[in-house]
Amino acid sequence: ALGLWRRQAAFAVARDDEEEKELRQRFMAPPVSGLRELRRRRRELRSRMELLIMETQAEMCRALADLDPGASFAIDSWERKEGGGGISCVLQDGEVFEKAGVNVSVVSGLLSEEAARQMRSRGKSLKAKDGKLPFCAMGVSSVIHPKNPHVPTMHFNYRYFEIEEADGTKQWWFGGGTDLTPTYLNEEDAIHFHKTLKEACDKHDLKLYPKYKKWCDDYFYIKHRGERRGIGGIFFDDMNSPSKEEVFQFVKSCAKAVVPCYIPIVKKHCHDSFTPEEKLWQQLRRGRYVEFNLLYDRGTKFGLLTPGSRIESILMSLPLTARWEYMHNPPESSKEAEILEVLRNPKDWVH
Amino acid sequence: ALGLWRRQAAFAVARDDEEEKELRQRFMAPPVSGLRELRRRRRELRSRMELLIMETQAEMCRALADLDPGASFAIDSWERKEGGGGISCVLQDGEVFEKAGVNVSVVSGLLSEEAARQMRSRGKSLKAKDGKLPFCAMGVSSVIHPKNPHVPTMHFNYRYFEIEEADGTKQWWFGGGTDLTPTYLNEEDAIHFHKTLKEACDKHDLKLYPKYKKWCDDYFYIKHRGERRGIGGIFFDDMNSPSKEEVFQFVKSCAKAVVPCYIPIVKKHCHDSFTPEEKLWQQLRRGRYVEFNLLYDRGTKFGLLTPGSRIESILMSLPLTARWEYMHNPPESSKEAEILEVLRNPKDWVH
Repeated sequence: ALGLWRRQAAFAVARDDEEEKELRQRFMAPPVSGLRELRRRRRELRSRMELLIMETQAEMCRALADLDPGASFAIDSWERKEGGGGISCVLQDGEVFEKAGVNVSVVSGLLSEEAARQMRSRGKSLKAKDGKLPFCAMGVSSVIHPKNPHVPTMHFNYRYFEIEEADGTKQWWFGGGTDLTPTYLNEEDAIHFHKTLKEACDKHDLKLYPKYKKWCDDYFYIKHRGERRGIGGIFFDDMNSPSKEEVFQFVKSCAKAVVPCYIPIVKKHCHDSFTPEEKLWQQLRRGRYVEFNLLYDRGTKFGLLTPGSRIESILMSLPLTARWEYMHNPPESSKEAEILEVLRNPKDWVH
Repeated sequence: ALGLWRRQAAFAVARDDEEEKELRQRFMAPPVSGLRELRRRRRELRSRMELLIMETQAEMCRALADLDPGASFAIDSWERKEGGGGISCVLQDGEVFEKAGVNVSVVSGLLSEEAARQMRSRGKSLKAKDGKLPFCAMGVSSVIHPKNPHVPTMHFNYRYFEIEEADGTKQWWFGGGTDLTPTYLNEEDAIHFHKTLKEACDKHDLKLYPKYKKWCDDYFYIKHRGERRGIGGIFFDDMNSPSKEEVFQFVKSCAKAVVPCYIPIVKKHCHDSFTPEEKLWQQLRRGRYVEFNLLYDRGTKFGLLTPGSRIESILMSLPLTARWEYMHNPPESSKEAEILEVLRNPKDWVH
């Protein structure tokens, strides 16, 4: 199910020919028989999305490896007995990154009507044959937690779903987003991040950025804290118009914007000096990240409830370390209070 | 609503007369008018449970303060605008304890039928007048996270609920439990802990310990990990027979067993030497603790969803620090694998 492009990601992080050869043997997917079949498959949207997912993983891993040359990736390919599998690349305890993971998965099988309903944010009900719906889901997702408190955490995820109804109709939709979680506010970085995402959206429809920026602020809301997880970005789900091709092109633009919106910020700040107090505030913010992911994130909840899903890949999004202090309230007009203000009242960073 | 006994807890941690005087002024509840009223109130089960809750908080705080004389408690009394309030005592970053909190709360007000259903583990539906049910809930809860990885984390909670139905019938029930979460297995400690709890149960009914021991193992199950949070103890909910008085006496025995089942273990190990590797394993286990509390714990979920509840008191249960490593698997026959085995397959510690 992982198809032709399975090896891409692993190769991106190989340091030399020897390592690449070894990885190639570990991950090589069974070859497609014949050039005609290969060409046909390459034209299918499903295959093109699969390729985009693998390329995005490879690009991100390459960028992370360049920034943190001493760190090594744990690369695992896994298979789901119900159908499909994935590749997880995780860098841990590096010089620049505390924990950085980039996952891809392409899974297929049969869904219950209930599970299908939960998968879709609009909760539209689907007609199943014998109570089961054939489905295919693929996506790339990543969370990057840097060590330096002046480098923000970044998350992105782009995904595609297909479900076949009893009468043979195929329901399909895309979802995804990219968002930033800084420990301290840097307005220049916030503007760069949002501007890069806006440019990617604007190429397709000027209405998309404002709509998906708001959706992002709404989605990453930690209700019991009255705070967003970060300073946002874009988020969308259940996107299935104007056409499959056009939505795919939009998702492609977003995926291609991931490296340019984030990596320059890492480069700019990864050698900034910081105090133990700043590190502590970062750890408290990591605690909030954990709260959001475990209490509210639909993807995490859905993943943990899905039989046969890979727990380690889902919980890869959690930081290496986190902290919870009782009644921690930063003093007024501190740098800590400054970021809290923005998390409580999201700002528009570009117009 | 906190009644006559509000000050008890705060006084337990006062170091001298001066401090006690100050705390007395901060927490003193309005006095009851007249000796007759005082006597009447003291006889009511609700008041006796309130007293037990306050005494349990005071006993625990006193024990913690004795073990960690350098540490100071943050004591906050809070009020809920919908009715009632509580007192939180939290010790943080001490010599012996990383974070230790003991909360009491006594709240009352009106519940929606839906909220009332969720409150009760059996989910029995209750008939409301105009859709609202007058209720009263009180409890003491505590989580103790020690610094030394050879001292286990302990949690307990004892609570009482009353709900008045449309026809005036009062539904009531008790719930609670005490459980232990060691980083490393010490069989002697496990036996002492369970034996003390069993003795408390056996005084009332020989069937209680086996039943509530199993309930505890079932409740603290981290499904996606296939592990229990700890080595268990007792857990029960929705207990309303044989009679209010008898259940109260049982809960009292359990509450009185908290200090003797745990504090000797702390004293025994709080000066044990430990390695950085042992500290790291503790931090990973703290991560699992966070996963259980945020993903599965009914009390935490219910608390966070209840309007007007005190977030800081609910999340006090989270450890000061926690860690998540990707694909951490302890080597076979290590001390780390030994505790995992018991968390995967709970043992009977006493017969």
